[in-house]
Amino acid sequence: MPAPGENLKINGERLWDSLMEMAKIGPGVAGGNNRQTVTDEDGEGRALFQTWCEAAGMSMGLDTMGNMFARREGTDPDALPVYVGSHLDTQPTGGKYDGVLGVLGGLEIIRTMNDLGIRTKHPIVVTNWSNEEGTRFAPAMLASGVFAGIHDEAWAYERTDAKGLKFGDELQRIGWRGDEPVGARKMHAFFELHIEQGPILEAEGVDIGVVTHGQGLSWTQVTITGKESHTGSTPMPMRRNAGLGMARILELVDDIAWSHKPHAVGAAGHIDVYPNSRNVIPGKVVFTVDLRSPDLAVIQDMEARLRREAKEICDDLKLDVSFEKVGGFDPVAFDEGCVTAIRTAAERLGYSHRNIISGAGHDACWINRVAPTAMVMCPCVDGLSHNEAEEISPEWATAGANALMHAVLETAEIVE
Amino acid sequence: MPAPGENLKINGERLWDSLMEMAKIGPGVAGGNNRQTVTDEDGEGRALFQTWCEAAGMSMGLDTMGNMFARREGTDPDALPVYVGSHLDTQPTGGKYDGVLGVLGGLEIIRTMNDLGIRTKHPIVVTNWSNEEGTRFAPAMLASGVFAGIHDEAWAYERTDAKGLKFGDELQRIGWRGDEPVGARKMHAFFELHIEQGPILEAEGVDIGVVTHGQGLSWTQVTITGKESHTGSTPMPMRRNAGLGMARILELVDDIAWSHKPHAVGAAGHIDVYPNSRNVIPGKVVFTVDLRSPDLAVIQDMEARLRREAKEICDDLKLDVSFEKVGGFDPVAFDEGCVTAIRTAAERLGYSHRNIISGAGHDACWINRVAPTAMVMCPCVDGLSHNEAEEISPEWATAGANALMHAVLETAEIVE
Repeated sequence: MPAPGENLKINGERLWDSLMEMAKIGPGVAGGNNRQTVTDEDGEGRALFQTWCEAAGMSMGLDTMGNMFARREGTDPDALPVYVGSHLDTQPTGGKYDGVLGVLGGLEIIRTMNDLGIRTKHPIVVTNWSNEEGTRFAPAMLASGVFAGIHDEAWAYERTDAKGLKFGDELQRIGWRGDEPVGARKMHAFFELHIEQGPILEAEGVDIGVVTHGQGLSWTQVTITGKESHTGSTPMPMRRNAGLGMARILELVDDIAWSHKPHAVGAAGHIDVYPNSRNVIPGKVVFTVDLRSPDLAVIQDMEARLRREAKEICDDLKLDVSFEKVGGFDPVAFDEGCVTAIRTAAERLGYSHRNIISGAGHDACWINRVAPTAMVMCPCVDGLSHNEAEEISPEWATAGANALMHAVLETAEIVE
Repeated sequence: MPAPGENLKINGERLWDSLMEMAKIGPGVAGGNNRQTVTDEDGEGRALFQTWCEAAGMSMGLDTMGNMFARREGTDPDALPVYVGSHLDTQPTGGKYDGVLGVLGGLEIIRTMNDLGIRTKHPIVVTNWSNEEGTRFAPAMLASGVFAGIHDEAWAYERTDAKGLKFGDELQRIGWRGDEPVGARKMHAFFELHIEQGPILEAEGVDIGVVTHGQGLSWTQVTITGKESHTGSTPMPMRRNAGLGMARILELVDDIAWSHKPHAVGAAGHIDVYPNSRNVIPGKVVFTVDLRSPDLAVIQDMEARLRREAKEICDDLKLDVSFEKVGGFDPVAFDEGCVTAIRTAAERLGYSHRNIISGAGHDACWINRVAPTAMVMCPCVDGLSHNEAEEISPEWATAGANALMHAVLETAEIVE
């Protein structure tokens, strides 16, 4: 199969300009973005992406989960498409690159192919997966999960946000619920470019992360019930302080993660205290414990220890506690052929590279279940992500998109 | 000075009916009330109270802080009035009696006097103090604090709620910002009836708490700043998790309170986590530590230890921390003459009684600075308050109001 020449490069300036243009939609309060899934801002971002895709000669498909598929035809009508993409939605205080780089990097590949008149045997489809972040509607990677058959679509539509609004209704409201049945497409391969969201590549001065595995994830929502009472006149021995139970469990989570170093991590990012009044002892606290490891046995051990020891903590404090698993996926091993295509691309382009385990969940983790899949990572400043201060250099973005393009073109087979 | 006869009693059924009628305004979600200060519901409650006062022949005064003063004339035009009252505002998930019993108990005294044709030398003024709870607009006891010269009125107007609305604007909006300059009134004495909000009287089977002292309070708002980052791909050693710092400080607060047993208490009822997303390590946590003791030296010691050791905790975790004192008052010793009037009333009526320290702050704690003041307490079920399940028996309410009436009438001097 013909490989692209080593001098074949994307237009880094154009890619960067598009990233900055997209970042104007749903601006954050501190230089980043708040373009949460199926909001008006998400709709605006989708429309801009569609305009760009159509200008590049692609036709847009839209499925019932709002996943967008911009297609550039190949020369073989029977060849399955090579898919490339990520997500345009962001965290409430998110950055300009998490997800967006993977979508616009895919678009830039097509623009470069157009510039240079490159044709491929396989069609290439640039994809925007709905609701990757999962902040507004848990779980994360909702729509790629439905596409891959992990979640039921009807269940996904019923996911509610903090205001009680449903994902399906909001998708309809913003006008991006399509007719194409979700998951009907067959893929020759799927490639996702993403910023690392961790500090390793930058610290080691490496250009390209060749993602061999994805860390597994477990989200456990913990609900502690004590007794609301007056902070002044309830003697210490008579208190059932749900906030104190939460404090001790947060300390436990930290301990659990450290006990499986160096790869395991654990924390609670979401904590709601009820009634959240200065002079009322918390009667209820709801929080979500996020535990991750590349080793399935470790995840299972961490979950079990959390439930066992959190129960002991709450028993000691005369608190009731319940646990609900609200999200998670097993560790992922990406397709060997696709991983090799990325490593080969980095070598051909003269980039330094290393194997890396993805610490975060990605749409690629689900798509790996239904198609040969791999990921490219580029460094980000200080490992910072899910933060408005998230930053990458134009050079890193360019190198990542170049490696992505070479892997995609080798897999889609350039027609000479 | 003539004392009321031991057979003089309020109409307990009428008092109870009025309590139930008022509870229909701003109902909670679980049988209690959500009638927060200067909301539309607060305005409705005020209007009902005014209607009742006017029906009982009183004239209503309203000051610039929205404090309400329903006056029944005395026989001596030069005699200062005896004031009696409490507050009609509630917690967001509050009970039907906290505050309300003290206001409607005052009204019931007047109704009983009208029934029996009792006249007093001193006028009697039934008072509803604005924003006692302080949940929507901190600090608690805001308007009685301005009345007593503790707070500046302009500062009080500028207090903002979680939505950024200002107390002064909201008071104006609901139509209860009066013209009378706040604090201009002189008082012969002030009496406040309140539910205990603690478990002591019920546990000991005592009818009447004679409140000799009020516990001092310190509210310290703690702001911890770490670094928002991805829960999956940020290695444990590189985290600056503000949630973990908060957890350790909550444990510290518990330890501080226990170290000053049996009277000191401590907890955090208000905790806000930012950005509060499941897969973002908290970059900021803001919470309020509530510390109380009847001993000023203990409060000062607890505050100092909190600031010192919380700083150490945050230094260890590479977190920044700042402290702001957002509320507080020194322990209070009530007026000996007024306290004696209450004790004498309980004895005359044949009620069991004991001295008690108020665990909660009350308007009486501020008014004690500008007038001879004391408080009566009645039991409440299970010590529960600041909770929709707050409950008292009609008998407890009646006994409390009877003791209140006898103390008020003895002080206002019945004219034979």
